[in-house]
Amino acid sequence: MPRTIQPSSLGLRTIDLLQDLPVSRLDAISQQCDWRHYEAGQPLVARDAADRDLHMIVSGTVRVTSYSEGGRETSFRDLQAGTSYGEVSALDGLPRSVDVVALTSAVIASLPPAAFRALLRDEWMVNERVLLRLTDLVRRLTGRVLDLSTQSVQQRLCAELLRLSLAAGTEGNTARIDPAPRHADLASLVSTYREQVTRELSALVKQGVLAKDGSALLVIDLQRLRSLVP
Amino acid sequence: MPRTIQPSSLGLRTIDLLQDLPVSRLDAISQQCDWRHYEAGQPLVARDAADRDLHMIVSGTVRVTSYSEGGRETSFRDLQAGTSYGEVSALDGLPRSVDVVALTSAVIASLPPAAFRALLRDEWMVNERVLLRLTDLVRRLTGRVLDLSTQSVQQRLCAELLRLSLAAGTEGNTARIDPAPRHADLASLVSTYREQVTRELSALVKQGVLAKDGSALLVIDLQRLRSLVP
Repeated sequence: MPRTIQPSSLGLRTIDLLQDLPVSRLDAISQQCDWRHYEAGQPLVARDAADRDLHMIVSGTVRVTSYSEGGRETSFRDLQAGTSYGEVSALDGLPRSVDVVALTSAVIASLPPAAFRALLRDEWMVNERVLLRLTDLVRRLTGRVLDLSTQSVQQRLCAELLRLSLAAGTEGNTARIDPAPRHADLASLVSTYREQVTRELSALVKQGVLAKDGSALLVIDLQRLRSLVP
Repeated sequence: MPRTIQPSSLGLRTIDLLQDLPVSRLDAISQQCDWRHYEAGQPLVARDAADRDLHMIVSGTVRVTSYSEGGRETSFRDLQAGTSYGEVSALDGLPRSVDVVALTSAVIASLPPAAFRALLRDEWMVNERVLLRLTDLVRRLTGRVLDLSTQSVQQRLCAELLRLSLAAGTEGNTARIDPAPRHADLASLVSTYREQVTRELSALVKQGVLAKDGSALLVIDLQRLRSLVP
């Protein structure tokens, strides 16, 4: 169970939605929040949770995982301190479709939906940030629908491997991704099944694009990998 | 080319975003808009259009079509009088990803982005409707991503045929969809290629689920169709 802790208006200064608010307003918001300290691995929000709070990450990192109706994990993203989650349910009052778990020890300030809506009404700056966050989400989801409709699993997987290669740093025509990503994680990132990732990775090894090296995944023909991304 | 027409605050009374605003406010908004009359078939918005206006449909029906980067049509939806489109670009100032065409003769009132944002700032009720419209869009797109990640083309096609059957009215274990939907439209609705729709429909005919009857598509085993939808 998380530990309840004291409100701290100082802790809210790093929250992106609340940037540039006067200290008196931050004080008031911090008093409206529930403050909790979580240990790594503790669940923050369950899909069937009744709360509709806006959750602000004061410190630590959390993982947000989406699930299909059948219960299959379909994607996840990691959120850092300073960000928040739960705006959609806080605004429309409908159930969440995600689970959230603390990846590290974390402090979360949770603002009840009525207080969140009052804040948007009183502070245009915050309202505008929420509007832009939602339009950004709409654009990213639209892009994802287009990718899923128009690209094959192989193309999506190659795009993700290219992204990981660039993040790991390339050397000439090669890159070393260490540790190699878990097949289940790759499946989640490109919205497919683990089995299909395993199959596509084997095909890329046979084609001389990838190789295994202990715990690492080697890209041995980066140019070829790039050519497979649309 | 569309014909420029006179502003009409009366025309704005049916716009859902503006419901319950005082007449004086509707008057002011109508003066801030560009008013145009389009004939059926005329383009209203092109993907590369420079405007970032909120477009309100005062009368008529328009079709909004989305395109992938490669230029393939991926989906469309028809909007009726009283609705609007273009909120996302009006808010974030980024390019549109859709084409819009008048399906019938139509009157459109177009509100420039600065006036739209001022309206949201002044009228919480309108702001709240836009927030809820965006959260609804986020939820629907998330659902679509989940469908695309977890359902096969056959399952998505059967779900769409079931929806069309229920809309057309069923009779016992059968339904008559008349006129039969175009394969390209079905492809767009379930996010796949026309060729694959043709292939899947043939398979459903062979399985005794569907039959052709002149211009109509007959569902001759509704129960079976239902069983194919996850």
